[in-house]
Amino acid sequence: MKKLKRSARLVEMTQYLLFRPHTLIPLTTFADRYHSAKSSISEDLAIIKEVFEEEGLGELTTLAGAAGGVKFIPKVSKANSLRIVEQLCRQLEQPERALPGGYLYMSDIMGQPMILNEVGKMFASVFAASDIDVVMTVETKGIPLAYATATYLNLPVVIVRRDNKVTEGSAVSINYVSGSNKRIQTMSLSRRALKEESRVLIIDDFMRVGGTIHGMMDLLQEFKATVKGVGVFVESGEVEEHLIDDYVSLAKLSTVDPKTKQITVEPGNYFKHNAFVQEG
Amino acid sequence: MKKLKRSARLVEMTQYLLFRPHTLIPLTTFADRYHSAKSSISEDLAIIKEVFEEEGLGELTTLAGAAGGVKFIPKVSKANSLRIVEQLCRQLEQPERALPGGYLYMSDIMGQPMILNEVGKMFASVFAASDIDVVMTVETKGIPLAYATATYLNLPVVIVRRDNKVTEGSAVSINYVSGSNKRIQTMSLSRRALKEESRVLIIDDFMRVGGTIHGMMDLLQEFKATVKGVGVFVESGEVEEHLIDDYVSLAKLSTVDPKTKQITVEPGNYFKHNAFVQEG
Repeated sequence: MKKLKRSARLVEMTQYLLFRPHTLIPLTTFADRYHSAKSSISEDLAIIKEVFEEEGLGELTTLAGAAGGVKFIPKVSKANSLRIVEQLCRQLEQPERALPGGYLYMSDIMGQPMILNEVGKMFASVFAASDIDVVMTVETKGIPLAYATATYLNLPVVIVRRDNKVTEGSAVSINYVSGSNKRIQTMSLSRRALKEESRVLIIDDFMRVGGTIHGMMDLLQEFKATVKGVGVFVESGEVEEHLIDDYVSLAKLSTVDPKTKQITVEPGNYFKHNAFVQEG
Repeated sequence: MKKLKRSARLVEMTQYLLFRPHTLIPLTTFADRYHSAKSSISEDLAIIKEVFEEEGLGELTTLAGAAGGVKFIPKVSKANSLRIVEQLCRQLEQPERALPGGYLYMSDIMGQPMILNEVGKMFASVFAASDIDVVMTVETKGIPLAYATATYLNLPVVIVRRDNKVTEGSAVSINYVSGSNKRIQTMSLSRRALKEESRVLIIDDFMRVGGTIHGMMDLLQEFKATVKGVGVFVESGEVEEHLIDDYVSLAKLSTVDPKTKQITVEPGNYFKHNAFVQEG
């Protein structure tokens, strides 16, 4: 790349950092890339850091020394995420979303990349320091959310299948009891999809009793993996006791009245966590 | 937002544009946001435009007049995409990827957000001017790719299910013949997932004969929708004739020898299209 002026360098570095979250970038990488002195690069980074923090985009952490560099950690601000989640709650409360069986239609919301990115960034924010190797979900509806989260954490995604006719080589299958209808179901994961002893973040779109997530945890034992966190977009508040104790929910569905179609959704336990970027 | 200096403004505008592809942003939005004169904003945009084009990130198109503004169109450069696809071809040729039945294990590659983003950007580049309303795929493995593409096109995603026990309200189901094993299969789409007369881009991870994609096209007829494009990550070259004529493939799998496990993958017909950003 040719030598750039500061103005062009700032644009270039901003995009470079945004597309490489959770990646340590040595200052020499930038210095070589733009044929600039490290001192100029440091000044550029100070400007970018200030804007990122002011805007609630995330933190830019600098590590000094020979093995040092700069790392972009996507974080959301509490005010911003609460505003977004409140809006989503109002959308989820639209009466036409009530489906038979107490389900809620939310595929349209989960089909919008802009919303998924915001929600993914929230999970990436709260699990930023959890030392995770891989994000896991079960097909189908949780997949986009798992990817959005993994993008901001810069981690791979592993998808558990609901059948065992996977065309992915040998697989480990387990049976589990689905919480809502007590039916016995199967889920499976390809042997080669997950290294043994991985540290896993489980992401899903909806949790009622927690049977499916509990099933994923059982499956993970077969891989000697450790669950480092569980994040769900919407949890059901109808249930007295969940099979899972420790999870982060962005929203909580309290009631779906099948007669009046009245739906109540409120922000989840996410907002009790303290994983937000400090606002400028 | 407080008044910003040019340096901070450039960082801010860069991230603002990157997260809002295919969105017309009036110059007044920026002028108001940063308390700056429109002439300063125009100068900033010229700097950003130059870097984006130099870097092969995409185009920044400016529309003059009262209804005018600036729009970021993600585009890839031919050299960059060819380099990435060549690398992916070499990865796909690893002998241990050969699965029984001539399948290829590629879930690990499709599980990496960084790769998905690159591939999604390539599809968004080639279909940038195709006047699309929605990106569609069928569960399971095409979903991440569909989302990555939709993110860069700023469009919603619709997921076709392989069963008809969807918990998404009334659905339209069709039967189709899977090309590879000639079995009759079912796919279905929730009525409320897709507006009638939508213009649709179909994205999938793998195409052999094209039976699944052909099924999606049949299903779309039930919604009076128009197919504006078909993009597949890998097409199989074993097949003499596809059920689909017009599609874009990024890579082409020529042979999987089940005995020797020799796999040959080469760049697809994508590179015959002319949808690349001009490199600086």
